[in-house]
Amino acid sequence: MSDLIAKLNWRYATKKYNPAKVLEQDKLDRILEAIRLAPTSSGLQPFEVLVVKNPDLRAKIRAVAWNQQGVSEASHLLVFAAWDDITEERIDMMFDMTNEQRGFINEGWEAYRKQLKGIVASRTLEQNAEAAARQVYIALGLAMVAAAFEEVDSTPMEGFDPKAVDEILGLGERKLKSVVILPLGYREAEGDWLAGLKKVRRPMNQVVSEIA
Amino acid sequence: MSDLIAKLNWRYATKKYNPAKVLEQDKLDRILEAIRLAPTSSGLQPFEVLVVKNPDLRAKIRAVAWNQQGVSEASHLLVFAAWDDITEERIDMMFDMTNEQRGFINEGWEAYRKQLKGIVASRTLEQNAEAAARQVYIALGLAMVAAAFEEVDSTPMEGFDPKAVDEILGLGERKLKSVVILPLGYREAEGDWLAGLKKVRRPMNQVVSEIA
Repeated sequence: MSDLIAKLNWRYATKKYNPAKVLEQDKLDRILEAIRLAPTSSGLQPFEVLVVKNPDLRAKIRAVAWNQQGVSEASHLLVFAAWDDITEERIDMMFDMTNEQRGFINEGWEAYRKQLKGIVASRTLEQNAEAAARQVYIALGLAMVAAAFEEVDSTPMEGFDPKAVDEILGLGERKLKSVVILPLGYREAEGDWLAGLKKVRRPMNQVVSEIA
Repeated sequence: MSDLIAKLNWRYATKKYNPAKVLEQDKLDRILEAIRLAPTSSGLQPFEVLVVKNPDLRAKIRAVAWNQQGVSEASHLLVFAAWDDITEERIDMMFDMTNEQRGFINEGWEAYRKQLKGIVASRTLEQNAEAAARQVYIALGLAMVAAAFEEVDSTPMEGFDPKAVDEILGLGERKLKSVVILPLGYREAEGDWLAGLKKVRRPMNQVVSEIA
């Protein structure tokens, strides 16, 4: 078994956190770096991640998130928020940054910039927001893997009212929309109904098939 | 730097593959196992992955995928296809399998099964398909990480006509919709315009912010 597979088997969607155990800053930094390095469509990184520490805000979020314990009791709460739209300005921001960091202008890349602007202009705002939201899940996946490598527990959550969270955190003014939240911290295995239960996945032949 | 961060820095969206270099079966198996272990919303794993080897099919897919070299020339092509809908039957399949594998029925889990059926029934087919498609990106992220751990190159691609790919692979009859494709294999660095270029990401303070 590879190290990665072992980590994926180790992790589970923790249902109860020990509020007294604080996530170490260096571990958090490596988890955030994995998020930052996540590959995304056209390299746009069409999202931001908010690290919410404020207990009042976390209590408010918990109230619109099915009262899930980890939202307020895990050491940290990450909120993944996607761009509310993919605009020309945002595309230019990433393409200009790319040119600047690489120190030259690639012709193919510039042609692709134009093509990409055409694509996003042909879609509705909702379609662009959805395209951005999908990319969040790549970063979410990497964050869960990174947490597992740090032996940090995490719980991916879609079960919350995104509009309410956007309002609590003022995401609308930042042209962002919350997509998924991820408490990070350390499990309190006693009292966590899922801790210790068998991880269930469909057998390989029901997930993967070959077309020869 | 952790091992994971090093692997994320190593990988890039390979633009040219060496068609003569074949991906080893044990490496492929570990990449597929990472996909199978991907955490998903409510544990539904609402997707399947097709490993396409047939050269004729891969040429047909390449023709509807912006003629990208890796689609036909990389060693393997993975097609990630999401459920076209989240139905009661599919929910029951996963919840029944969970009960069977764990050997007991959890009351909270059964209450959640009912709740989840209510949620999916309240959404349109398109909304359920989109919810399934989002989960694909978690598995995609893990597949790219797993490939990097194996020092295997990969290229995530949204640039294809999903309806055409669905037809080429007969996904409609299987109630699946192609979402993203991922060639796997080994780079041909000579002739790959992106190989060796600096990886560009927004600086940490533009991706992550703290709400204290």
